[in-house]
Amino acid sequence: MPARLAHLTTIDSLTPQLAGELLEKADEFLELTRKPIVKLADLRGKTIINVFYEASTRTRTSFELAGKRLGADVVNIGGSATSSSKGETLRDTVKTLDAMHADAIVIRHPASGAPDYVAKHTRAAVINAGDGMHEHPTQALLDSLTIRRHRGKDFRGLTVAILGDVLHSRVARSNAKLLKMLGAHVRLAGPRTLLPRDAAALGCPLYERIEPALEGADVVMMLRIQRERLGSSLFPSLREYARVFGLNAARLALAKPNALVMHPGPLNRGVEISEDIADGSHSVILDQVEAGVAVRMAVLAFAAKP
Amino acid sequence: MPARLAHLTTIDSLTPQLAGELLEKADEFLELTRKPIVKLADLRGKTIINVFYEASTRTRTSFELAGKRLGADVVNIGGSATSSSKGETLRDTVKTLDAMHADAIVIRHPASGAPDYVAKHTRAAVINAGDGMHEHPTQALLDSLTIRRHRGKDFRGLTVAILGDVLHSRVARSNAKLLKMLGAHVRLAGPRTLLPRDAAALGCPLYERIEPALEGADVVMMLRIQRERLGSSLFPSLREYARVFGLNAARLALAKPNALVMHPGPLNRGVEISEDIADGSHSVILDQVEAGVAVRMAVLAFAAKP
Amino acid sequence: MPARLAHLTTIDSLTPQLAGELLEKADEFLELTRKPIVKLADLRGKTIINVFYEASTRTRTSFELAGKRLGADVVNIGGSATSSSKGETLRDTVKTLDAMHADAIVIRHPASGAPDYVAKHTRAAVINAGDGMHEHPTQALLDSLTIRRHRGKDFRGLTVAILGDVLHSRVARSNAKLLKMLGAHVRLAGPRTLLPRDAAALGCPLYERIEPALEGADVVMMLRIQRERLGSSLFPSLREYARVFGLNAARLALAKPNALVMHPGPLNRGVEISEDIADGSHSVILDQVEAGVAVRMAVLAFAAKP
Repeated sequence: MPARLAHLTTIDSLTPQLAGELLEKADEFLELTRKPIVKLADLRGKTIINVFYEASTRTRTSFELAGKRLGADVVNIGGSATSSSKGETLRDTVKTLDAMHADAIVIRHPASGAPDYVAKHTRAAVINAGDGMHEHPTQALLDSLTIRRHRGKDFRGLTVAILGDVLHSRVARSNAKLLKMLGAHVRLAGPRTLLPRDAAALGCPLYERIEPALEGADVVMMLRIQRERLGSSLFPSLREYARVFGLNAARLALAKPNALVMHPGPLNRGVEISEDIADGSHSVILDQVEAGVAVRMAVLAFAAKP
Repeated sequence: MPARLAHLTTIDSLTPQLAGELLEKADEFLELTRKPIVKLADLRGKTIINVFYEASTRTRTSFELAGKRLGADVVNIGGSATSSSKGETLRDTVKTLDAMHADAIVIRHPASGAPDYVAKHTRAAVINAGDGMHEHPTQALLDSLTIRRHRGKDFRGLTVAILGDVLHSRVARSNAKLLKMLGAHVRLAGPRTLLPRDAAALGCPLYERIEPALEGADVVMMLRIQRERLGSSLFPSLREYARVFGLNAARLALAKPNALVMHPGPLNRGVEISEDIADGSHSVILDQVEAGVAVRMAVLAFAAKP
Repeated sequence: MPARLAHLTTIDSLTPQLAGELLEKADEFLELTRKPIVKLADLRGKTIINVFYEASTRTRTSFELAGKRLGADVVNIGGSATSSSKGETLRDTVKTLDAMHADAIVIRHPASGAPDYVAKHTRAAVINAGDGMHEHPTQALLDSLTIRRHRGKDFRGLTVAILGDVLHSRVARSNAKLLKMLGAHVRLAGPRTLLPRDAAALGCPLYERIEPALEGADVVMMLRIQRERLGSSLFPSLREYARVFGLNAARLALAKPNALVMHPGPLNRGVEISEDIADGSHSVILDQVEAGVAVRMAVLAFAAKP
């Protein structure tokens, strides 16, 4: 039996059926991770290599735990420790990991498309842990798992508003694709300078203010403002951003009364999301983190060759 | 059966009875770690996350080995890799690790009190691996285990001199508390500028020179001079410090003939301790390192929920 | 039964017989690592500590995988995280790791001879993962394993040309020793400024151009040019180096028609080796990487005390 998932570099490689099976498996794993003892053997004798060209605590730790809980050997390679600092090409690095018989390569890279390129040069399953402004497919899957656990398996009729710096967000891009595939309505909103020009390609309505996107929404996904964009010509101050585009109680009141509030983390409290909303009863932000480990377990298990 | 230890953020959370049980268990583990094969299953299926906001080879490695030898999955998060570099609050970082179902969080942090704060925001057992100028409880436990293995279980009648930069030392603070709890007499000595003002709270006699503290002592604990304090107004040169406050053969002769010499490491040879004493027959410095892994095994085992 | 290998700090500590047994065992391990599930128990309950004072993805990952696949607990200590940044001596660091009951210490260090010094201060087996300009014995073993798998067990009659910056190369030094021990003829060639003055000690003919060394060679080993030597008085530009000393199709035609082309990586494509040769049919560079994990498994298994 071949692996059910050759690679996961983009949501495009999923079908509605496969996405549903992944979420189903992740849901099972999530229940298992709540037990006092979590040690499975699905990936015993398998090797997972996390290659992070950008720093990340949350995602790297989530993948590392997912692999270890399935019994795999997990090795981390990161940032300045990579041979790229010695001038090695990405292709040579990947071929090296392949020759060491890696079963899965989890890669975060600042260049959009790097995981697809990597997948061409290895027999390992390649899992995209975030590439430039392109995609972050396991984030989308964990977000959908979180919604599903709160709202049920049928996404048809759900309206999801994704709000903030849509232009630079791989989280927004992967979520828009997956949510539409699962049947939800997706709205994108943010400052005009932070909206994508190829929005038509995503097939979602765009709003230059967040209020109309929030109206009647079932799910509100806030995007992280990357402070390194500050001072660029794209937007003014954090305070100004918070005032016009931040989620607060008044704005959230526009959504459905039981709307879910989500955020991929790490939070900029008081910027894209107010303190009271981040910690409030609508917030499922920590559920997202929990779902993250479970989704990564499912992805790694589906990608493992028997 | 609940865990015997909810958290270990300060020696204050121990009772003499619990401290005794911990040392007893650690003593058993120490014997086990001397065997050729060391692989237990006490923490199989448990997750330990080491979060080190300050660099440390010795303590992090000791905790990592302790966890792995008990069969746990151990994940390291360190320094610049932490999301705090992206502006995340400590509370959000901890809640994230909690949502990933960490069973124990081992934390080193430059801010005094950080582990207590962390313990309020997680279901995991929080183990303080050193917080600012506050406490380093596993260091105190390993020091007591070392003394106990050389001098027996009954600490009553033992005089322990803790010498050096007492003011900034979390090692001194935790040791003073634990040693007094176990029945030992504790003396503190160091340059006047490096003695705490709240010394009364520690309930130990203070000396501004080390000679009177050394007289008749059973145990001599030297504290590490942190070179980063050099050039501050607190003390002059390393040479001057060594001349007046360093432990050498002449000064050690003031202590009991069979006195133990201890140091938490890493050593500044020729500064707070002379070469010949560090490597001499009184030194139990490497016994402390060995005891460290065993004590951390015991602490992690006592903190694990069944 | 004692361990068959006390330490591996230099090729000098091997005999032809022991080298042969190591390669035989590595060959078995290599076949095992090609299976879908790789999890052995040879080092279960053993502790391996990787101490890398110089950055290295490839070698550290190779040793880490080797240890984990044999069931050992593996701990990494690296660069700025080492206590040496706090002024600790190498001897104290090693004695600390010894007191934690490390079974093997794998060390990379910029100082030639550091692993031999370390071996004097620990009960652990010390494996040299590269020390200054001295030796890199597991690289030589993996190179010999690669040759053996392509050319058979008998190295007598084989001519191996080692080309490039011989002077600074620990890879060249270890390979020259091992290949001669196994019966091969070894030629060394490179720019005059990058040839060792003690070449007589290595007992190999030296050439100041690579063409005569290539003539009729069975194996061509290219050495990596370390870019940090650029701008020194030792050689001019990368382009000049490539033009005169780089391996390309015209030069390779001087060797035997079925000659093997090797490189320890990471590659400087277009400098010491041309793109087409690096990826061409003669290249066994990725076989070397695969052999690396297997050789390190064999070395760790031979060094483990029962």
